[in-house]
Amino acid sequence: MGTVQPVLVSGVWRQARNAEGTFTASNPRTGAALDDQYPVSSFDELNEMLDAAVGAAEQLDGTPVERRVRFFELYAAAIERDREALAEVAHVETALPVSPRLLDVEIPRTVRQLRMAADVLRNDDWRGRVVDPAANMVSEFHPLGAPVLVIGPNNFPFAFNGISGGDFVAALAAGNPVIAKAHPLHAGVSRMLAVLCAACASEAGLPAAAVQFFYRCSPGSGLRLAGDQRLGAVAFTGSRDAGLRLKAAADPVGVLFYGELSAANPVFLLPAALAENGDAIARDLFASFTVGCGQFCTRPAVVPVLTDPAGERFLETLRSLVTAASSQVLLGRSVRDRFRAACGEIVQAGASRTAEAKVTLHEGFTAEPVLFETTGTTFLAAPGALQHEAFGPMTLVVRVADEEEFARVARVVEGTLVATVYQAASGGDAALLARLRPLLLRRCGRFTVNKMPTGVTVSPAMNHGGPWPATTHPGFTAVGLPRSMQRFLALKCWDPAQA
Amino acid sequence: MGTVQPVLVSGVWRQARNAEGTFTASNPRTGAALDDQYPVSSFDELNEMLDAAVGAAEQLDGTPVERRVRFFELYAAAIERDREALAEVAHVETALPVSPRLLDVEIPRTVRQLRMAADVLRNDDWRGRVVDPAANMVSEFHPLGAPVLVIGPNNFPFAFNGISGGDFVAALAAGNPVIAKAHPLHAGVSRMLAVLCAACASEAGLPAAAVQFFYRCSPGSGLRLAGDQRLGAVAFTGSRDAGLRLKAAADPVGVLFYGELSAANPVFLLPAALAENGDAIARDLFASFTVGCGQFCTRPAVVPVLTDPAGERFLETLRSLVTAASSQVLLGRSVRDRFRAACGEIVQAGASRTAEAKVTLHEGFTAEPVLFETTGTTFLAAPGALQHEAFGPMTLVVRVADEEEFARVARVVEGTLVATVYQAASGGDAALLARLRPLLLRRCGRFTVNKMPTGVTVSPAMNHGGPWPATTHPGFTAVGLPRSMQRFLALKCWDPAQA
Repeated sequence: MGTVQPVLVSGVWRQARNAEGTFTASNPRTGAALDDQYPVSSFDELNEMLDAAVGAAEQLDGTPVERRVRFFELYAAAIERDREALAEVAHVETALPVSPRLLDVEIPRTVRQLRMAADVLRNDDWRGRVVDPAANMVSEFHPLGAPVLVIGPNNFPFAFNGISGGDFVAALAAGNPVIAKAHPLHAGVSRMLAVLCAACASEAGLPAAAVQFFYRCSPGSGLRLAGDQRLGAVAFTGSRDAGLRLKAAADPVGVLFYGELSAANPVFLLPAALAENGDAIARDLFASFTVGCGQFCTRPAVVPVLTDPAGERFLETLRSLVTAASSQVLLGRSVRDRFRAACGEIVQAGASRTAEAKVTLHEGFTAEPVLFETTGTTFLAAPGALQHEAFGPMTLVVRVADEEEFARVARVVEGTLVATVYQAASGGDAALLARLRPLLLRRCGRFTVNKMPTGVTVSPAMNHGGPWPATTHPGFTAVGLPRSMQRFLALKCWDPAQA
Repeated sequence: MGTVQPVLVSGVWRQARNAEGTFTASNPRTGAALDDQYPVSSFDELNEMLDAAVGAAEQLDGTPVERRVRFFELYAAAIERDREALAEVAHVETALPVSPRLLDVEIPRTVRQLRMAADVLRNDDWRGRVVDPAANMVSEFHPLGAPVLVIGPNNFPFAFNGISGGDFVAALAAGNPVIAKAHPLHAGVSRMLAVLCAACASEAGLPAAAVQFFYRCSPGSGLRLAGDQRLGAVAFTGSRDAGLRLKAAADPVGVLFYGELSAANPVFLLPAALAENGDAIARDLFASFTVGCGQFCTRPAVVPVLTDPAGERFLETLRSLVTAASSQVLLGRSVRDRFRAACGEIVQAGASRTAEAKVTLHEGFTAEPVLFETTGTTFLAAPGALQHEAFGPMTLVVRVADEEEFARVARVVEGTLVATVYQAASGGDAALLARLRPLLLRRCGRFTVNKMPTGVTVSPAMNHGGPWPATTHPGFTAVGLPRSMQRFLALKCWDPAQA
């Protein structure tokens, strides 16, 4: 067995105190446990972090913003410098391809987010200052003045990592200390990032407890931490069940809870589009729901299609693509087990499994891409169960009978990150698109036409968010600075003559 | 007995269906019940309103914004036209003076808020549009697309009324239908406002269920309504207990809950300021904690003062002002009963009642202005209990021993709407102010120097909000357009080439 890795408490790497056991990560391609051991932190340790972070909140308030700028620059450069080693470890832990995924897409995006934070902090626009000379009053946004607990998901070891991703960047850029929790499925690369992060924070002159880091805790300790009034906010990306439990702990004591809790991201394929371009759309859809082994929060999981000849041809193409595919490797055993269970629940709710990859190329924690189909009637009878997340390479085609049923399905779309419509270049779907657009726009955070929902651009105009239950507040985005900082800011006003 | 007043459901004034009883308002100056009866709405009726409002949300989305502009203009003009009759009824129900309070301050402010909403909607700035041509992406804020339940408080029958006040204006300006609940202590003036409101909404061409109105429901029905997923948000101003119960109902189903839940609004009187100007400050403080019979959410309830000769002189002046005062009339029996109980709890928590008005001029639901005092040590031992709201004409002077204790008291200030410091013109308090300012700024939404916290200016730079537990989210304000609308908006993005 390897050594037990240390945690980062108040600027010091040390062995966990009173750890409640240890765990190891696994290589999902083989199922074999990796060498390093990581501690399960006790609540006493989390409590110590929280105390230190409360102090750091006050210190950060008096620390020049330039130090945060410097920190984000240093950290971006450090990740860039070590990118190959980081990608290699992340690959071993997650089975995500080194190239292009990790090295060419996710790490550059992570680095870009850090640099955007530095850029945003170079001027005061993010403070949203409003001056009213007539009333002799000024208002602007300040840090929450309290620590933010960031809990990242399993599927983006860099861009959404609790110690390097979008929520981490937003919370710290806003001037709040971060307590970051590694995702246990990629504890090793998280530790490497935390080592870089801590060194850069120290070099930039941030308070010692501005960033702290642990790997795991018991569910009870996690709920106790999320429900501790000393905390300012929790940012969570992950499963709906875990998110709702944490939210239930945070809400009653006024700890702000921002959760991204899974979404069905429906893709409405309109009849003329399929008549014009069905084969290409089938290929795009297949690519979109299998990218990253289907482990994207924006994966298209519900696909309404009209039951007409073009729809049938599209479905045949899609079924053959799925049948001809090979198995893929999921992020871990727990992901595979939950995916299998969720696929069973979809069948239970009335859908049929109409195509499944036949070629099993891999050992380890694998999944075969799978296609489900159901009718509009069945979908309308169980819209909740049939939009419940199955995190893996699946999608569900909903065969609707007519335009009316398209609209009825649009009305029962649950709050989602993305809603998509494919329309024909000929204009043949224009009337139906015009009818669906307002219905779908209300239910989503991002609306795309003729573009699959996977793929999130880092842009100030991006909204990676959406209505409940996709996220916990439809007014905020988790991606796109400076808006993503808004979640972690508090409004203040005063009389400028006075203060 | 008078007639049972109708409710407003989907544009129609009608008798309540399956009402769970009736109630009457009282004249707080006499304690006598007023003539009119009002229904206690059943959940069936609230459910019908909710269904209608869900439809109205969709309709509003397709209604030109100009109609909302027109509505706010018409409603402002109607209130202005009927201001004398409105003030008279409000006066009978609340005992608040017709002039200057209702006619010269609160009604003009209410009218100004409505007109500001019209102004804000005349251009698209409130949408916060962000365009990123490089990424071919646009984002902007849209209505929540779901109804907002607005529950106003007892203390501002116009400016915070559920059917005419700040939250009503913000929610509807943002494009969401409002279900407004009257405060039962001023049901009559609320009904009059609702009649004007409904007529103006109809004249402006808003959907029939854009504004709906009821008087009261059972606590169980209220919780059921707040916890109904068809609702987009609840805006509540009132007691912390009631607010937290509603929040607990709304949170688990993703209904946004915005509560303003009472605040202690501490006023730190620094030593040199009291040496320079103690008598005037005592008069200002007395006026501030007794204005509106102490029934302001910004009333100063905690006043740290140094135990030095100037502090003693200030306290003597303050005690004489209180002792020489007359009784005042509270808003109602329940307010009086809760005020008495809360004063008892303050004594229980270790404070002494050191001065109380001796002259009882009124019958009805009265309170005598009262001064409490305690030591810094006692306050620091029970900061929660000694900041708990007693809604009425009281304040608590905390006699601190030295500068260090000022700072310790500042550190245990609960999240509050306003924090205030009085400093000397001589500059003699500058060092202490510099020390207290960052501590207090973190705990408040508005920071004032040498200005009592009561008095809220309607300005785009105003923040009427603050950290938990003063409100439920420190990033939002309930007063000051367009920012107050932000609570009721959802972020959307799309590709402008597509949609």
